[in-house]
Amino acid sequence: MIKALQQLRVPYGKKVSLDSYPTDDLLSNKPLDKEKIQQATEGLQQQLSDLQEKLYAGGQQSLLIVLQARDGAGKDSTVKRVMGAFNPNGVHVANFKAPTALELEHDFLWRIHQQVPAHGMIAVFNRSHYEDVLVTRVHGLIDDEQAKQNLMHIINFEQLLADAGTRIVKFYLHLSPEEQKLRMEDRLNDPAKHWKFNPDDLKDRALWHEYTAAYEDAFTTSRKHAPWYVIPADRKWLRDYLISQILVHTLEEMNPQFPEAHFEAADYVVADIPDKKG
Amino acid sequence: MIKALQQLRVPYGKKVSLDSYPTDDLLSNKPLDKEKIQQATEGLQQQLSDLQEKLYAGGQQSLLIVLQARDGAGKDSTVKRVMGAFNPNGVHVANFKAPTALELEHDFLWRIHQQVPAHGMIAVFNRSHYEDVLVTRVHGLIDDEQAKQNLMHIINFEQLLADAGTRIVKFYLHLSPEEQKLRMEDRLNDPAKHWKFNPDDLKDRALWHEYTAAYEDAFTTSRKHAPWYVIPADRKWLRDYLISQILVHTLEEMNPQFPEAHFEAADYVVADIPDKKG
Repeated sequence: MIKALQQLRVPYGKKVSLDSYPTDDLLSNKPLDKEKIQQATEGLQQQLSDLQEKLYAGGQQSLLIVLQARDGAGKDSTVKRVMGAFNPNGVHVANFKAPTALELEHDFLWRIHQQVPAHGMIAVFNRSHYEDVLVTRVHGLIDDEQAKQNLMHIINFEQLLADAGTRIVKFYLHLSPEEQKLRMEDRLNDPAKHWKFNPDDLKDRALWHEYTAAYEDAFTTSRKHAPWYVIPADRKWLRDYLISQILVHTLEEMNPQFPEAHFEAADYVVADIPDKKG
Repeated sequence: MIKALQQLRVPYGKKVSLDSYPTDDLLSNKPLDKEKIQQATEGLQQQLSDLQEKLYAGGQQSLLIVLQARDGAGKDSTVKRVMGAFNPNGVHVANFKAPTALELEHDFLWRIHQQVPAHGMIAVFNRSHYEDVLVTRVHGLIDDEQAKQNLMHIINFEQLLADAGTRIVKFYLHLSPEEQKLRMEDRLNDPAKHWKFNPDDLKDRALWHEYTAAYEDAFTTSRKHAPWYVIPADRKWLRDYLISQILVHTLEEMNPQFPEAHFEAADYVVADIPDKKG
């Protein structure tokens, strides 16, 4: 794994400061070559497609990709531009919105558990169980004690999935407040983007530092089987490249294989079909 | 809609003979230009992506795409190559395999109903409720009377979905027995494709004419809100082109629109974020 990616990974079980992660660059001083990086991303997309085919055919393991971010950080566009590399047959995107009345009558992991990937599959969580230590906490629906308990349940739940052959990889799309401002203004000013703007997003923006603190607690669930990565998200092409790179790395580590045939090819002959009688 | 496509559509409520539909060509005598058709398909894919964005944003209607075919006709590859044009956020692929014990304890539409698309979404059924008038009938698990009853329930069920804003489009990938033989032999002879070969597929192949008869009955469910199309499937690039073309046509007819904004953009200002206190 390239060094820059290691630096974006939250150390397992540690508390980190979000300020120490870049929003628009890697941690090196080298200038970034946009065109070269976009080309590299295309190559990575082909690798992702090939690795997924093996994961699907092998049917032994599964991959759960968690996307979390502030409004406008590019969750939807990441799904379109990065996850678009996967064969739709083997990928399932779950968009977790405000819970329904029925969902609220269960524990917070009930609706999540129903959407985890089966063997061979990739699931993408566009928002996730982490909302239950983020939005609910920041808006005072749960207190710090409850948030701590939820985090413990999340750790146990992710361990359960990992023990059943599911690899988890969690991305936080790290956007600067300045870039968020530009993107929100863009949605306000361009009528074709109005539908993406929700006035409530401004309330969440005003809680910027509260969200930062809640995210920093959420990142303490980073584990070898379920690492968090803090992805610089101010530049879309850099974001796409880094996420693609990390997914390739993750799938290579999982090392999926085509299954062995359970038959002897020589035993079978594909016969001609006789014409229909009568 | 171009004339060739109209000819591939099964007349509503009519019984047709599968023999009258081509497997490797259109119904005209003009020779097909592969390169030109592949270029056209790329353009259609961009149209599909744009139309889907509106469908998703509008959130008023949904699209259900049903894929049925014999083994090797290219259902999986159609999903990858055609449905790959859609933003994964707004598409859900349901692969219906042999029903589970729990599913068998319900009516045959129970598991199907759970997977129909929500407003704004596209669902792709890779195999579908039609298996319950095809494989079960051909293998004698249900008799003709039961198949007739199931067909009636399918018609009623599809009407229910249509009345709730779901447009349905059903594709039968029409493969010739000769092309199926070549593809099966290819799977047997190429170790990298062994995992796609199931010895039971040969039993289904031997029931070729029985399947033909069952499909011809299934096609009688063709309706304006849920038409069947018989797609020549011996050539993958022609299949991809025709399905893309029909999907563009279907979505254009649905005419999805971006929603109106429920706010005045001028009422909102995106404020700067003050530095963290203390």
